[in-house]
Amino acid sequence: MINQFCHSPLWEVSRNLSAVAQGSKPADIVITGARLVNVCTKEILPDTDLAISSGRIALVGDAAHCIGEGTEVIRAEGQYIAPGFLDGHIHVESSMLSVGEYARAVIPHGTVGIYMDPHEICNVLGLEAVACMAEDAKRTPLKAMITTPSCVPAVPGFEDTGAFIGPADVAKTMTWNNVVGLGEMMNFPGILYSDDHAHQIVDETLKAGKIVTGHYSMPETGKGLNAYAAAGIRCCHESTRAEDALAKMRLGMYAMIREGSAWRDLQEVIRSITQHKIDSRLAVLVSDDTHPHTLVAQGHMDHIVRRAIEEGVDPVTAIQMVTINCAQCFQMDHELGSLSPGKCADIVFLSDLEKVKVTRVLIDGVVVSMDGRMTQELAPYTYPAWVTDSMHIGRSITPESFAIEAAGDTAGVRVIEVLSGKVGNLETNAVLPVVGGRLQSDVLQDVLKTVVFERHHETGTTGFGFVKGFGIQSGAMASTVAHDAHNLLVVGTNDEDMALAANTLIRYGGGMAVVQEGKVLGCVPLPIAGLMNDKPAAEMAALVAELEETWAKIGCTMVSPFMTMALIPLACLPALRLTNRGLVDCNTFSFVPLIL
Amino acid sequence: MINQFCHSPLWEVSRNLSAVAQGSKPADIVITGARLVNVCTKEILPDTDLAISSGRIALVGDAAHCIGEGTEVIRAEGQYIAPGFLDGHIHVESSMLSVGEYARAVIPHGTVGIYMDPHEICNVLGLEAVACMAEDAKRTPLKAMITTPSCVPAVPGFEDTGAFIGPADVAKTMTWNNVVGLGEMMNFPGILYSDDHAHQIVDETLKAGKIVTGHYSMPETGKGLNAYAAAGIRCCHESTRAEDALAKMRLGMYAMIREGSAWRDLQEVIRSITQHKIDSRLAVLVSDDTHPHTLVAQGHMDHIVRRAIEEGVDPVTAIQMVTINCAQCFQMDHELGSLSPGKCADIVFLSDLEKVKVTRVLIDGVVVSMDGRMTQELAPYTYPAWVTDSMHIGRSITPESFAIEAAGDTAGVRVIEVLSGKVGNLETNAVLPVVGGRLQSDVLQDVLKTVVFERHHETGTTGFGFVKGFGIQSGAMASTVAHDAHNLLVVGTNDEDMALAANTLIRYGGGMAVVQEGKVLGCVPLPIAGLMNDKPAAEMAALVAELEETWAKIGCTMVSPFMTMALIPLACLPALRLTNRGLVDCNTFSFVPLIL
Repeated sequence: MINQFCHSPLWEVSRNLSAVAQGSKPADIVITGARLVNVCTKEILPDTDLAISSGRIALVGDAAHCIGEGTEVIRAEGQYIAPGFLDGHIHVESSMLSVGEYARAVIPHGTVGIYMDPHEICNVLGLEAVACMAEDAKRTPLKAMITTPSCVPAVPGFEDTGAFIGPADVAKTMTWNNVVGLGEMMNFPGILYSDDHAHQIVDETLKAGKIVTGHYSMPETGKGLNAYAAAGIRCCHESTRAEDALAKMRLGMYAMIREGSAWRDLQEVIRSITQHKIDSRLAVLVSDDTHPHTLVAQGHMDHIVRRAIEEGVDPVTAIQMVTINCAQCFQMDHELGSLSPGKCADIVFLSDLEKVKVTRVLIDGVVVSMDGRMTQELAPYTYPAWVTDSMHIGRSITPESFAIEAAGDTAGVRVIEVLSGKVGNLETNAVLPVVGGRLQSDVLQDVLKTVVFERHHETGTTGFGFVKGFGIQSGAMASTVAHDAHNLLVVGTNDEDMALAANTLIRYGGGMAVVQEGKVLGCVPLPIAGLMNDKPAAEMAALVAELEETWAKIGCTMVSPFMTMALIPLACLPALRLTNRGLVDCNTFSFVPLIL
Repeated sequence: MINQFCHSPLWEVSRNLSAVAQGSKPADIVITGARLVNVCTKEILPDTDLAISSGRIALVGDAAHCIGEGTEVIRAEGQYIAPGFLDGHIHVESSMLSVGEYARAVIPHGTVGIYMDPHEICNVLGLEAVACMAEDAKRTPLKAMITTPSCVPAVPGFEDTGAFIGPADVAKTMTWNNVVGLGEMMNFPGILYSDDHAHQIVDETLKAGKIVTGHYSMPETGKGLNAYAAAGIRCCHESTRAEDALAKMRLGMYAMIREGSAWRDLQEVIRSITQHKIDSRLAVLVSDDTHPHTLVAQGHMDHIVRRAIEEGVDPVTAIQMVTINCAQCFQMDHELGSLSPGKCADIVFLSDLEKVKVTRVLIDGVVVSMDGRMTQELAPYTYPAWVTDSMHIGRSITPESFAIEAAGDTAGVRVIEVLSGKVGNLETNAVLPVVGGRLQSDVLQDVLKTVVFERHHETGTTGFGFVKGFGIQSGAMASTVAHDAHNLLVVGTNDEDMALAANTLIRYGGGMAVVQEGKVLGCVPLPIAGLMNDKPAAEMAALVAELEETWAKIGCTMVSPFMTMALIPLACLPALRLTNRGLVDCNTFSFVPLIL
């Protein structure tokens, strides 16, 4: 695969690199006296220099002869230098940050490249919006490698998304020079049971000679996993047990070991390496989903490498998992992932190896971060109006919009029971009061009305249900982060507050809001597709923290309740979900009535 | 890179593979109860089954459910199964065998794929003849991956070859579906000193996203090696010291550790792994040049793996060096090099792991060898007449053709002194008798006349010189294997025998001949481009052995003297060489006169 993510293609600058290595031309930069983390041989080489020219590495070794007039010399005595860190699987949208602000947040932590799957924005606004994220990325030095979202919609027929991605769309994106593969193929049942649509999407990627990334979340590692791997799916980040990851690596798949904000699998899954003493070349560390407060408080790949070291992985092996292993997974190791001649000069300086303390970051031979702060200004990027104007409800929302008709004084209903910090939920029942011919929330039972409004194509479709588990006493919450279709989701104790929460988000172009007794207590505006904001990470982290406090004020003691709420419509997972088309039994994949 | 070397592209058969893995369709073959050499995790998995369909692996694990009506079951209890062996760098021409017969010789030794650099035939007949070798390969199950010869001619301006390969030719071949990269870039000075021709040839390969293979034969591992690696050259098989290979791997290059018939580097070079305890993912074992007697007597990659094990490499690590490591070097690990779902079913059965005893070989899911013999007949392939008619001298060769005029009774001349078993030679002097105005060989001094006739384009150019070191007492030898231009090379004690030797080869269309007192004592006909023969390996090995005996009869006690003779014209190496254009001082790269 030709790499489009470096400053210059190698063939344009190789004569120059050779001349610099030979000492017949001065280097742009020479780093002297470093302890070089050699991920090729799994060694630390003491007192090693590195010469850079044209954004690439010209020489590793003794570079005294590469220093000439105009060469910047960076003394690295006592410091470690390692290849820049790569995140092999990441949804930028989960950070709620624009790609530009995301880059500004992660680069100081040593991240130089991400393999991003813009699944969320693609569900809202399609591939044109993916192209906007790519444009946004271009104003940053971060290498934003795209994997084309493979499952848009995630559960066809059960929800309305803003876009549809078919095999022809996938084929088209494979000609984009920033697309390196296919995003996580979540439709593993489709692969296992020879569904044509799922297979064709994979086929178009394989035909283009690009990488198919996976998502196999079953504990089954026998015939199902084999059937999945046999389709050409190269990696998977869904292992939650050490034996899952071990089975995948034994079947030749790259095991992407995840440590995100919500899904913290590393402690368990890294045992596939630390306990089994296998060759670790197929192990890769990834973040998957990281929220702004995690980026601000803990970091990014530096944090995940640190976690691997804490769990007993040797530091050089851990760094291999975010450098050469990841680059080999994407067959980009000729360009990225090691400090060796000809490769992009993407370099992380570490003052402490075990603690992964990043002090300086170079991308394409340019210092882009010092002591935890970007040293470059980013040019502004404004998402086009059709991206920031993504609330297409097609009618006014009033308290009346939340009415659920029912006969009698009470009615038995199906209830979604959410579980704090878990992806799965339960189906339960409740008997609710009917007032004036309309079903009511019941705070005493902690059963709250939940409504999903389609917001992409003004279809007017609306799903009605009830949810248990948030514990709020009064008020309402709304969110346009509502996986995977990201319609407008509202939960509340009364129709007036629910309408206010919904209209608040319509006014802001999307986001998350908490309302009580006619007052907006908190709001995180996410005007970019209803998913992201172009404010800095620290500001977004503070806004989200404030929002969490407002949840607590109205009675919810859950940690990060907005994350749990966002999964209410996620119809690809058990047990009972609510989409804009209605209640879905996700074990049988059928619509079921609300009232029993 | 899309692999064209498997039975079917994955995207055509993946639905089928998934169905077989799931048990909803029967497998073509199931192997049961094997000890599986897992090169992904560096483990041996006991009692493992493997299911095959459409030439690919559908499942690894318990395959009982994959057995149906029509499934062939191969019981492998007590045996090891490993991925088929790959030879990462090989010149088939050195075996003197057609590709078909070469395949028949190596497949029973576990070789399923070769990365062949048809440098020799390309020097004689150009890319059209390379295409013929590719056609020849197609009648065999062997995966013959081509790297385009990069240095044709090897030393422009100092010899006449049959063809010239420039950047545009290289670019054209990069569109061939059996070309995976560029053959060894021997012109490392050209790369180091920014020669445009050499760099452009590399550039065209990089632009096509393919692999550039290297040849860096200097002991220098500092700025020169860095300059070479920085140009995008991914591997090198020219290490003769452990520290050379170690330096290359530290610089991110694949170190191809060579164990050929003539160049036996493994014992020394493998210490880069056994002593330094580094990550061995960049180590690959290759043969480079293997003569027919080696193939018959010792084997091929099985022999080289065995040698690595004998030198202290753990067997699974050694097998990684001819499977996954090689496949990753060529970025074809998604198709080849491991026993995992979706990969080509190229499988070697071993009855003894340490001794690498190959009992059965499958390629693309078909048993192609049992107990050391191919089980398939090969369709015939006839090279076209322009390939087998490659002796284009353009005039009759008579004793008169060998005359070297000189004045006086004696004359001082430059002499090439060959060294048995060495690639290098020495320049020395001798005073030779002049009879009838013509310089004579002098058997007492062991100084023999040597003549090179251009044989490609009837240019009539002829080089004259003298050689010391063969020790023959009477007679003459001729060869069309004469690196790298492969012109007609004759060495002898008298002009009559030299003319007979030359004319014998002209009659046979090339080869090697030994003549004494008007009689042909021995001849190995090599009618395919003057380099190869389509007889079986055992027959060719016997012919070559007989020829060696005839050398001994006329007084030469050297081992494999034809190999040493074939290097007389190799003008890219020191010190003094003779091409069809004359004597070349290979230290200064200038023509020098014969007579002092």
